[in-house]
Amino acid sequence: MAELRGYTQSKEDLQKRLARVEGQVRGLSRMIEEDRYCIEVITQISAARAALDKIALGLLDDHARTCLLGEGSGPSDPDAQADELMGAVGRMLR
Amino acid sequence: MAELRGYTQSKEDLQKRLARVEGQVRGLSRMIEEDRYCIEVITQISAARAALDKIALGLLDDHARTCLLGEGSGPSDPDAQADELMGAVGRMLR
Amino acid sequence: MAELRGYTQSKEDLQKRLARVEGQVRGLSRMIEEDRYCIEVITQISAARAALDKIALGLLDDHARTCLLGEGSGPSDPDAQADELMGAVGRMLR
Amino acid sequence: MAELRGYTQSKEDLQKRLARVEGQVRGLSRMIEEDRYCIEVITQISAARAALDKIALGLLDDHARTCLLGEGSGPSDPDAQADELMGAVGRMLR
Repeated sequence: MAELRGYTQSKEDLQKRLARVEGQVRGLSRMIEEDRYCIEVITQISAARAALDKIALGLLDDHARTCLLGEGSGPSDPDAQADELMGAVGRMLR
Repeated sequence: MAELRGYTQSKEDLQKRLARVEGQVRGLSRMIEEDRYCIEVITQISAARAALDKIALGLLDDHARTCLLGEGSGPSDPDAQADELMGAVGRMLR
Repeated sequence: MAELRGYTQSKEDLQKRLARVEGQVRGLSRMIEEDRYCIEVITQISAARAALDKIALGLLDDHARTCLLGEGSGPSDPDAQADELMGAVGRMLR
Repeated sequence: MAELRGYTQSKEDLQKRLARVEGQVRGLSRMIEEDRYCIEVITQISAARAALDKIALGLLDDHARTCLLGEGSGPSDPDAQADELMGAVGRMLR
């Protein structure tokens, strides 16, 4: 199935990492509930964001690799692949 | 209590926004479960990240405002305040 | 020569854009010389940085396209190509 | 004069750092001239960008410090100061 999705990391691993981010976001809500100091909250937001970035970079890595190997379920036209890939990079950079 | 925490947005508003991000992250896990195309997953990660950034910027705005008004429960020394504020900006920029 | 370098934009165009950034940076030095207000200086730095980002994204786009088309002078192994590409994306994201 | 501009670093130091970035950008143009491999060019762009970011963060640090100390030539109203400061942070984050 991996070659269809465009990523090869195991679902379980990805979902474990996402569950951790979900827990971080829930923790943020708790910090607000407890009136925690705002600089601490911002620091925790930066940590959750960094975890999301890392997951996205990993997915993009898998995707680029799959495309360059000529596999994957994405567009078969190299130009369309490049558009799609660079669109994702551009959104990540913003 | 707002002047103690360093932010003035209502808890309810912040928690509503965080709950939305939590839902986005849960949605990401579902996308993985359903073998959704990786570029779509990355796009959704970018959306969750942007939402977190906006929340952090809002908190930082409140915090800077509170400090500049000479209120808040943070350090009373302006230099320590600046260190703390710039530390948070630096972590957000990374 | 374009297929050797990995980018297809004309040299002249790229150099024109870089000359503009060079002018922006020289302008920054002049602003400091003239004791201009720091927020204005920071705004101009952000503009120069955005211009550099755009040039880098354009080069990366060309590069990814060239690789996906199986051209270019980069590594011929798709995995090495992906490593190189993602290394560049990672450095841009930092 | 420093308290008027909103930054306290010596002009000479700032201008030396900007001159270095200018040299980096000029070097980028030379790399294009010499048909250097695009991944190397992108790596050098990332280095120039990081140098600009560091200069901007240093200026912002000085500025925040000056404002929090109640000095500087910026707006005297704390809310206007916060708007200005957060505007600069927002532009840097983009």
